[in-house]
Amino acid sequence: MVPSPSPVPGPAPAPVLPGHRAVLAADAPMRLDGGGSLGPFTLAYQTYGQLNAAKSNAVLVCHALTGDQYVAETHPVTGKPGWWELMVGPGRPIDTDRYFVICANVIGGCMGSAGPKEVDPATGRPWGLGFPVITVADMVRAQALLLDHLGIDQLFAVIGGSMGGMQVLQWAAAYPERVFAALPIATAARHSAQNIAFHEVGRQAIMADPDWRGGDYMANGTKPTRGLAVARMAAHITYLSEPALHRKFGRNLQDRQRISFGFDADFQVESYLRHQGITFVERFDANSYLYITRAMDYFDLAAEHGGVLADAFRVPGAGGGRRGTPVRFCVVSFSSDWLFPTPESRAIVHALNAVAANVSFVEVQSDKGHDAFLLDEPEFYQVIRGFLDGCAAHRGLPRKVG
Amino acid sequence: MVPSPSPVPGPAPAPVLPGHRAVLAADAPMRLDGGGSLGPFTLAYQTYGQLNAAKSNAVLVCHALTGDQYVAETHPVTGKPGWWELMVGPGRPIDTDRYFVICANVIGGCMGSAGPKEVDPATGRPWGLGFPVITVADMVRAQALLLDHLGIDQLFAVIGGSMGGMQVLQWAAAYPERVFAALPIATAARHSAQNIAFHEVGRQAIMADPDWRGGDYMANGTKPTRGLAVARMAAHITYLSEPALHRKFGRNLQDRQRISFGFDADFQVESYLRHQGITFVERFDANSYLYITRAMDYFDLAAEHGGVLADAFRVPGAGGGRRGTPVRFCVVSFSSDWLFPTPESRAIVHALNAVAANVSFVEVQSDKGHDAFLLDEPEFYQVIRGFLDGCAAHRGLPRKVG
Repeated sequence: MVPSPSPVPGPAPAPVLPGHRAVLAADAPMRLDGGGSLGPFTLAYQTYGQLNAAKSNAVLVCHALTGDQYVAETHPVTGKPGWWELMVGPGRPIDTDRYFVICANVIGGCMGSAGPKEVDPATGRPWGLGFPVITVADMVRAQALLLDHLGIDQLFAVIGGSMGGMQVLQWAAAYPERVFAALPIATAARHSAQNIAFHEVGRQAIMADPDWRGGDYMANGTKPTRGLAVARMAAHITYLSEPALHRKFGRNLQDRQRISFGFDADFQVESYLRHQGITFVERFDANSYLYITRAMDYFDLAAEHGGVLADAFRVPGAGGGRRGTPVRFCVVSFSSDWLFPTPESRAIVHALNAVAANVSFVEVQSDKGHDAFLLDEPEFYQVIRGFLDGCAAHRGLPRKVG
Repeated sequence: MVPSPSPVPGPAPAPVLPGHRAVLAADAPMRLDGGGSLGPFTLAYQTYGQLNAAKSNAVLVCHALTGDQYVAETHPVTGKPGWWELMVGPGRPIDTDRYFVICANVIGGCMGSAGPKEVDPATGRPWGLGFPVITVADMVRAQALLLDHLGIDQLFAVIGGSMGGMQVLQWAAAYPERVFAALPIATAARHSAQNIAFHEVGRQAIMADPDWRGGDYMANGTKPTRGLAVARMAAHITYLSEPALHRKFGRNLQDRQRISFGFDADFQVESYLRHQGITFVERFDANSYLYITRAMDYFDLAAEHGGVLADAFRVPGAGGGRRGTPVRFCVVSFSSDWLFPTPESRAIVHALNAVAANVSFVEVQSDKGHDAFLLDEPEFYQVIRGFLDGCAAHRGLPRKVG
């Protein structure tokens, strides 16, 4: 750990990000799985569509590791389209003419919600590694406070892919009465050894960068951009399938007729990966990467329920017994996803079957790997649309908010 | 690129490694695929067993990326057993009572053969990035010169896994008259986009380390150990299967009863990976890692033969035509190897079938991933033993050198 020099230069003023801010846990701090607490704290969020009078048409979208709240609008830092514009918008599967969509930056994140990049009110300096290590359950607990803040008792649906899917599962397990329908996508009820291993490589790459400064880089005016770029490159490979890489790049050369016999990016796949690393560091905070990967590693829903995943989906029943969750589930996996492969989704489905829950399961045939849930996969969007339409009919939601 | 200061401190004296040294290409430099040449240059090698009078019992073992010539003896740096003691030794499948085994450190390596760590005779300083970028074919060309040096016209067999298997394929393609039997194991006729991507992550991790100093770290008295450790960690994941990681580590914690809510190695898999990184840097040179990964990336045997892999295995026939290679092949893959998956081996077998070559192919059922070729897999060793025994009978080699 590099000690921070004193007096420290102040952190550069953070860019002002557009959107909503809620200050939560103002009356009482929110407890954290790690034993500490947090509060008051800020959650940055975006909404799309209109909340109906009964407040029964809210859909919470949960973002993945490096996602954020800008689901269906131009990203304020990158200028690129929202990360799920194929899914969310007027006439889209999550139809903003019908539903009120909420997406909050997770705690630990770096787009305005409480996290290591933000200022610790107790010290007036960035939290850095002083920010408490959080879990997926903590992220969800913060979202539940946001719903309280918005006066929403029950979500019509909660949906997310990858780490977003972990949040969906946690929502259904922790707040079954607040969720009508849950759509965990390309996810798992626990992080595997291989997943942890890849995350650890990323963390070590960041921590190996001298500009990380033991996590205190903001006070030191440095940024561990090289380490963070390497972390992103390694992770990015895991988001794509080998067939997708082969189809997209194969052994094609980048802007040259023959190999250079050097260490430049001869191959398109190298150039692509380097680009992924370089652009990522412009929008993401290295310490946030540490915190969020850690939260994913720690996720193990069965372990929280005595090692029996099905018990995560039981609720108090008549006469003091336990019955299956009333939440309706739509579980989706992608055939070429090797980061969260289909057997992980099947394990979730088996647990739901064991409690006789209402569950649909689809393995979408795709060669696009884990990232398929963000890409143009018509079958996937049809599945989500169909499931939500059915749930909306049950719930009596009209086609348009009226 | 960090310019090297002048005057430079001299490099630390390299530890003296035991074994043989051959100075090759002393009369005429060896041409390189990159257009340059190399020579005179040193090849460091080990031998086991005795060469028979006819010089017909030589087996060349080709090592993988981070392997070396210490196949069947205690490693002089790590003190660990030789990397293929299960395969090579008295009574082993490659029986040193019967065969004369040769293994040379590849050029570009760091265990005594010409490479970036060694001194460039032209300057008296370590080559560093001044060493020419080499290919698998260059490695094999150097080995062929070593055979000339040893007076061996034809190898009884050439065998190797992973990058060693690439060398085996190159041997059979470039010198079919000098190879009686070829055993490419857990390999491919070309490096895939995903393989290149993982290598590029490793190279970027090394180059991101400020101690790399633009490759000139030896002159600067630094070592990019952190970057090299990250490179090794990322690569190591690709050597193991997800089931093997799950079986070996799962989500087991390391020396603790519960998670620490921090960034220490909570999980055994993290601790294991960190250990892999730390121990690797003690025995391997960062620039060698760049050169050797690059050689693997460049390997594409079909591309060298007009895009038709089968043409790599055709030799001049009667009447000016072409016929299939006379080399006998034993191709082995492992069912859980996702770095060099079975379809890559099948592609080799199909090409050999297309020229009616003599080929055996076995996919060994194993959950150990790519590293299975180094581990205790009885079926694998039986296959190698059986194939070599059959070839030895054809070749008329007695059970013991006599």
